[in-house]
Amino acid sequence: MSNGGATSSLRELRLEIEEFNSAYAAALDAGKIEEWPRFFTDDAVYRITGRENADAGLAVGLVYCEGIGMLRDRALAIAKTTMFAPRYLLHQVSNVRVLGSSASGETTATANYALFETLIDEKTILQQVGRYHDRFVRGASGLLLKERICVYDSLIIDTALVFPV
Amino acid sequence: MSNGGATSSLRELRLEIEEFNSAYAAALDAGKIEEWPRFFTDDAVYRITGRENADAGLAVGLVYCEGIGMLRDRALAIAKTTMFAPRYLLHQVSNVRVLGSSASGETTATANYALFETLIDEKTILQQVGRYHDRFVRGASGLLLKERICVYDSLIIDTALVFPV
Amino acid sequence: MSNGGATSSLRELRLEIEEFNSAYAAALDAGKIEEWPRFFTDDAVYRITGRENADAGLAVGLVYCEGIGMLRDRALAIAKTTMFAPRYLLHQVSNVRVLGSSASGETTATANYALFETLIDEKTILQQVGRYHDRFVRGASGLLLKERICVYDSLIIDTALVFPV
Repeated sequence: MSNGGATSSLRELRLEIEEFNSAYAAALDAGKIEEWPRFFTDDAVYRITGRENADAGLAVGLVYCEGIGMLRDRALAIAKTTMFAPRYLLHQVSNVRVLGSSASGETTATANYALFETLIDEKTILQQVGRYHDRFVRGASGLLLKERICVYDSLIIDTALVFPV
Repeated sequence: MSNGGATSSLRELRLEIEEFNSAYAAALDAGKIEEWPRFFTDDAVYRITGRENADAGLAVGLVYCEGIGMLRDRALAIAKTTMFAPRYLLHQVSNVRVLGSSASGETTATANYALFETLIDEKTILQQVGRYHDRFVRGASGLLLKERICVYDSLIIDTALVFPV
Repeated sequence: MSNGGATSSLRELRLEIEEFNSAYAAALDAGKIEEWPRFFTDDAVYRITGRENADAGLAVGLVYCEGIGMLRDRALAIAKTTMFAPRYLLHQVSNVRVLGSSASGETTATANYALFETLIDEKTILQQVGRYHDRFVRGASGLLLKERICVYDSLIIDTALVFPV
């Protein structure tokens, strides 16, 4: 995977990304949608798309945000909406892999996620499984996402997908 | 999240808690219920409650144990009962977060769990998903739980919940 | 679990195994079945079996490969077959535990896995949950599996199990 000298720093990056992903998931799972944009750079790209699109190299997707303004707009729209039934979300993020880290400080990484959703008085369901395809850069207080592309396997996605993943 | 000096020790704590959680889950998944109390301090509190109760600040819950005596009684009761159909359990514990560590050596942390259950000749089901809200202290041979509150999202819990999570 | 001196090296091994498992899962999830044998030693044993068989000490199982030749044959057979409906797979591997490491460099470890499967135009299902029971040795470029026994809880396994787990 990498030579001996680089291994330890890649491992440190992996552990740091795990902590980032846990904080990111905790914010979403707690319903703190207004905190979501702070995990991204000002020029970040955020996208949710199906695996069949991603495999085909298509840029289409269910959600596309470019720049922190669009991320904030989306967060605000969700925070203000009353169209959704109350639900609990829980992310399990696993299998973090650091694919590379450039001299300029950009790190590419992936992770697997499962998103469980519980509506009032209903059983918990597996809302979707997928992979994060990420590009991280280092901000003043830690890692930030310059790009997060969420590629879900699940071909049937219910309306809750309007929430970020 | 934390200053540079504290980061490495919080990371070490996180890794240690991951190892603790894996050993804890392995004991339960192997059906070694009699080992379960040894993960707790003598004065530990163990509770299982629904997210709607937890969010409302209610102390009610499906299971409440205070002190190692109650934990041992519960373990013994489960070990001796023949009321339950045989089943296999498997925990996936992820997203461990260290929220803080006090000078007195107490560490607060959370983790996400999914509990899968398989009854004989049936499909594996998602029994519940939830979060551990933990307070750890350091015992003679490693971390111990002073408090574990298991907050499940799932609103419909079958009778198997009598088992610790 | 271990004395202070051994703890840090066991932790390093745990982290290294996590990285191994993530790379292993990524190859399978990407459909790169031809890469699968390279995670094993020449004399490796690979087996998939149900928990009831494993608990009973039975060597029977759904899949049995001994030696890299059998692993390669299996990979080739799967790569060439057209009998299976297209599907997406996603592994979540968690709860890695290092159980021991011998002076000769062999490490025994376990991990929990959940395998999610998505067929075209269908909902994602939980295909199986189980545990890896592993023996690792160190090859020229990192860890290799000398033995991986996949013990699934799920008693009803669909035909997709012909894929390695």
